Amino acid sequence: MLRVGIIGATGYTGYELIRLLIGHPEAEISILTSRKYAGNPISEVFPSLRSRIQARCRNLSIEEVAEESDFIFTAVPHKTAMEVVPQLHERGKRVADLSADFRFRDPKVYERWYQPHACPELLEEAVYGLPELHRERIIGARIVGIPGCYPTGALLPLIPLIKQQVISHKGIVIDSKSGVSGAGRELSLETSFSEVNEGLKAYKVFEHRHCPEIEQELSGLTGHPLSVIFTPHLIPVTRGILTTIYCDLAKKETTETLLKWVGEFYREEPFIRVCPPGKFPNTLDVRGSNFCDIGLKVDHQRGSLIALSAIDNLMKGASGQAVQNMNIMFGFPEKMGLEVPALYP
Amino acid sequence: MLRVGIIGATGYTGYELIRLLIGHPEAEISILTSRKYAGNPISEVFPSLRSRIQARCRNLSIEEVAEESDFIFTAVPHKTAMEVVPQLHERGKRVADLSADFRFRDPKVYERWYQPHACPELLEEAVYGLPELHRERIIGARIVGIPGCYPTGALLPLIPLIKQQVISHKGIVIDSKSGVSGAGRELSLETSFSEVNEGLKAYKVFEHRHCPEIEQELSGLTGHPLSVIFTPHLIPVTRGILTTIYCDLAKKETTETLLKWVGEFYREEPFIRVCPPGKFPNTLDVRGSNFCDIGLKVDHQRGSLIALSAIDNLMKGASGQAVQNMNIMFGFPEKMGLEVPALYP
Amino acid sequence: MLRVGIIGATGYTGYELIRLLIGHPEAEISILTSRKYAGNPISEVFPSLRSRIQARCRNLSIEEVAEESDFIFTAVPHKTAMEVVPQLHERGKRVADLSADFRFRDPKVYERWYQPHACPELLEEAVYGLPELHRERIIGARIVGIPGCYPTGALLPLIPLIKQQVISHKGIVIDSKSGVSGAGRELSLETSFSEVNEGLKAYKVFEHRHCPEIEQELSGLTGHPLSVIFTPHLIPVTRGILTTIYCDLAKKETTETLLKWVGEFYREEPFIRVCPPGKFPNTLDVRGSNFCDIGLKVDHQRGSLIALSAIDNLMKGASGQAVQNMNIMFGFPEKMGLEVPALYP
Amino acid sequence: MLRVGIIGATGYTGYELIRLLIGHPEAEISILTSRKYAGNPISEVFPSLRSRIQARCRNLSIEEVAEESDFIFTAVPHKTAMEVVPQLHERGKRVADLSADFRFRDPKVYERWYQPHACPELLEEAVYGLPELHRERIIGARIVGIPGCYPTGALLPLIPLIKQQVISHKGIVIDSKSGVSGAGRELSLETSFSEVNEGLKAYKVFEHRHCPEIEQELSGLTGHPLSVIFTPHLIPVTRGILTTIYCDLAKKETTETLLKWVGEFYREEPFIRVCPPGKFPNTLDVRGSNFCDIGLKVDHQRGSLIALSAIDNLMKGASGQAVQNMNIMFGFPEKMGLEVPALYP
Repeated sequence: MLRVGIIGATGYTGYELIRLLIGHPEAEISILTSRKYAGNPISEVFPSLRSRIQARCRNLSIEEVAEESDFIFTAVPHKTAMEVVPQLHERGKRVADLSADFRFRDPKVYERWYQPHACPELLEEAVYGLPELHRERIIGARIVGIPGCYPTGALLPLIPLIKQQVISHKGIVIDSKSGVSGAGRELSLETSFSEVNEGLKAYKVFEHRHCPEIEQELSGLTGHPLSVIFTPHLIPVTRGILTTIYCDLAKKETTETLLKWVGEFYREEPFIRVCPPGKFPNTLDVRGSNFCDIGLKVDHQRGSLIALSAIDNLMKGASGQAVQNMNIMFGFPEKMGLEVPALYP
Repeated sequence: MLRVGIIGATGYTGYELIRLLIGHPEAEISILTSRKYAGNPISEVFPSLRSRIQARCRNLSIEEVAEESDFIFTAVPHKTAMEVVPQLHERGKRVADLSADFRFRDPKVYERWYQPHACPELLEEAVYGLPELHRERIIGARIVGIPGCYPTGALLPLIPLIKQQVISHKGIVIDSKSGVSGAGRELSLETSFSEVNEGLKAYKVFEHRHCPEIEQELSGLTGHPLSVIFTPHLIPVTRGILTTIYCDLAKKETTETLLKWVGEFYREEPFIRVCPPGKFPNTLDVRGSNFCDIGLKVDHQRGSLIALSAIDNLMKGASGQAVQNMNIMFGFPEKMGLEVPALYP
Repeated sequence: MLRVGIIGATGYTGYELIRLLIGHPEAEISILTSRKYAGNPISEVFPSLRSRIQARCRNLSIEEVAEESDFIFTAVPHKTAMEVVPQLHERGKRVADLSADFRFRDPKVYERWYQPHACPELLEEAVYGLPELHRERIIGARIVGIPGCYPTGALLPLIPLIKQQVISHKGIVIDSKSGVSGAGRELSLETSFSEVNEGLKAYKVFEHRHCPEIEQELSGLTGHPLSVIFTPHLIPVTRGILTTIYCDLAKKETTETLLKWVGEFYREEPFIRVCPPGKFPNTLDVRGSNFCDIGLKVDHQRGSLIALSAIDNLMKGASGQAVQNMNIMFGFPEKMGLEVPALYP
Repeated sequence: MLRVGIIGATGYTGYELIRLLIGHPEAEISILTSRKYAGNPISEVFPSLRSRIQARCRNLSIEEVAEESDFIFTAVPHKTAMEVVPQLHERGKRVADLSADFRFRDPKVYERWYQPHACPELLEEAVYGLPELHRERIIGARIVGIPGCYPTGALLPLIPLIKQQVISHKGIVIDSKSGVSGAGRELSLETSFSEVNEGLKAYKVFEHRHCPEIEQELSGLTGHPLSVIFTPHLIPVTRGILTTIYCDLAKKETTETLLKWVGEFYREEPFIRVCPPGKFPNTLDVRGSNFCDIGLKVDHQRGSLIALSAIDNLMKGASGQAVQNMNIMFGFPEKMGLEVPALYP
């Protein structure tokens, strides 16, 4: 059994990791840390875990974590992550980090959007943990930067379209709609029930930090700098991201042909599902699962293609993807512990 | 007091008209018709109206409606509307129709998206009831086609941007998110609670009938055919449409300047509110009100402009706009009966 | 025009007061205070008020409030209220207080559930602002303690049943379900969207401070101490309280007879609506309105009666009731500014 | 592998059975029937099942079902169930029926609340499938009537309280709050999104068919007819039932003692969790899991006890309980396939 530690166990991605690891046949939770809830049984923090797990949250001690774990998930805010990860790395531990701190290749990009980077030398080594794009490198990775939730939803439909030169690299518009759990468990008026419920709004227009992340990966695909327009919206659901992508068609193919191409591109992928023509993704069909559902349609008169994806932001958009990375890194079947279909309705 | 009849009083737009007319100082409800609930007190259909209105629903008799009303709202489905409206028109009655049947100038466009038109000769006379665009013609109109909810949310931000030549006419992308009440009160699995709640999806991709309506009005502004890309999404809230519009900038102006221009353009408009720089609309701020809130931002590096609007689909997107039209047609103050701020939170 | 000040204008009850006063023909807002947002335009705090009101929030100065207002609503937390109200009272101002500080006749009861009372001598003079019970005293009151939201929902069905000796005084069970806005606008994990959404829970079982308030008023009716069992529940809606009351029948009357009696008891009441037999209240039918809908049913075999009520916790449960009190205190028609039916759906 | 058939696979309990069986190590789905969707792949009916299961829905043929299955779940409406189950029973098949048709011992009670029973002779043989009460009989049962969702939530807290003579048998009040999925997937205005969302209401006051079911089981415990008061409420969440139970205390024990007793009573039960003193159940903590969380508190002054339970109505309230019964009937570990903690948040 792989002994797995979770640093920052009491946020939503922490909970989701625990939920998944409890059901994982090859992994066991060895240590849970939380600054805020140190000393408390995790089942007091999350009563849904009562009778399923006995562990207490501990204050973070790198020594203890390194000693008691074979593998570590860091589910702490950015900035904290880059303080912790190098210490684990030094001690020979492999880490999947769910913050933004190890997603960027170029420290300058990171620093423009976040803050000075504490260990830029590790960025070269770290792998962007999107298995559909970087599986080969993930296998041997020592540090994986788990992709952001929005980038996951945006990249998965775009990768095959760009690889197969179906769309223009210019004028890509990504309109994303996210549930509230993506904002985490910290208190804020923006995520207060009465402020969110029955409302709809965009935020961080032209300013969201997930935009450079999307651009990095797309530019990596094309070999030249590619710029996109990205707008996140807050929707009164707990889980789910629906991403609507608008592109100019570069090839005059039918919807059916393009869907076939995308399906073939992802044929071996365990978590990508392509909708048949005329059907489009719904976040309710992926809630609680690690699937990314993809649909698309072309309009030849307008020369346009609309691609859509649905993910659960805490699963394929965070913790599910993290466990998928763990499975790859340790040679487990990639679907292990991630096979449950969505909790519908 | 203007005696006002409502044909089709028992759908959501019918309820909203009743709610507004009850509080209108110059209008009184004279007759309510409903095929399904004929004979029933309206307060049995809508218990929220108990003690506020005594009327019973009646079966539709054009004679009775014409005799007992000075003005009529038709809140019936398209196709039914174009059977009813000509008969009222013949009897000299002015009508505001909330269906799609009198929104199109060109019967061929209507017929491509809907069905054969029963009275194409009336389309020339009918006025598209968007006061911000056609107020002068509404004053004397005999038939007003109340705009669709999505077109209202899309047109109001675009009109000043196009009039002031701020944006390119090509490549306009309109991504709309709507609450469920826009689908009306008819039963369908698509609007069933458990199917909608906690889900997010697009529908009628490249196929929604509100697209040609938007294009008609924008083309009317520019004098040449203008084509847009429009995607509606279903969101688990009851009321509200948030519209996110992506355009290519044609003028290198700042966000502040453009907001100032839009503000000046709409300075006299009682129901348009322009958000300050850095602020964006939220449907929760307009729920239950007739306001359309507009925000925008430019990104010079990308050469792009994002404009957003929020409306209540049953108010500015339907019945509120209909009452606004009535006020204009009968010389009442335009805000009369429509002044209440949003029901927040 | 009555010049009305609101102390504590930036919570949910503050917003609701502003919303109602904007539409009130005989009152105008003269001053708004807020410690947190002093200096800010109220329309920045609540963008839904943009273009409807220009005022800025000010820091509380009793002098200014007293000088600029004929009447004051205090919408601040308990404890703060009892510091402010006496100062206004000294200056000859009439006040409606929305906190708990002036609801109790007996300072000892207040002190057992809250804290030491700063001005117990004013409790005798203060009137419990439930018009259906204390209208005559409200007319001349100088200080009104606006009832709590739960007590309003519980008392209105119970008053006629107790007055007409329909039910036993023993074993009354009150099970209340409340929307989240009742918890106010302060941040807390308990009202965070992802923690509340899709959940259902009871809280403060046998410990809620509204229980002694209910008991005070029922005991006042019967002339002897009456004790009830009261459980509040948190429901993921923004507005609304549904109260289900279980009693032992003391009279063998039919549902129809009891409904008739309740209807007659409340015949002159502008905001009480009694459901016909077989129909029960729904909070959606009162949302945004000042109505309290009441239904009931008896089961003779079990010797039981179930009574239900629905209110909007921010309207009849707080600010709507406060404006109703103002209307009574100043001789305005009681329904003035409160006539709009519910925002349904 | 146990070959399992599902008759009526396309409702919500049908989906939930499929979801659970997909992950069950000892069972495999052998046949799915649906009158409405016969011929369609189940993954077209439920897109969330795409890539997880290939089966097509078939029209019901008893012969085929009996031939291809070792065990059958009937997830059809009452009345249909009692037509189908005897035919499977004749063919030697064991069945778990999710309708009400095999829950009642006394056909007269069934017939008073439902309709004439088609096979009253089977009622004696059928076992009420609440493992915590009837595990021994379930082991060998040929027909199990899976308990209703409300009875499950009501009985589990009451059983130990009654067995240990903690509460009076008179005056038990059960106030239940249910999510909308409990009403099934059939269309109705009562479960339409805009009618349910943001509303709260009671229904079938003193008339719900689950009341005699609760009374049957409680009377079975006490050996004499026991009558309860039960009110169901509809809450705008998809899943979850919170049950609040009010009883008169028969023993003067503390909350702590009673919680200890209940905990001991259920010590061996894999799906009952007892909350510590001062904590109460939340449906969010059991959503998607088979747990029933129980909490309670006493008030000696009032002589009252409040007990609360939370279940997921589609899991412990229906399909999860059905799989638990299957596990018992076939000697699998009782938790098999049911171990996942709740999908929180």
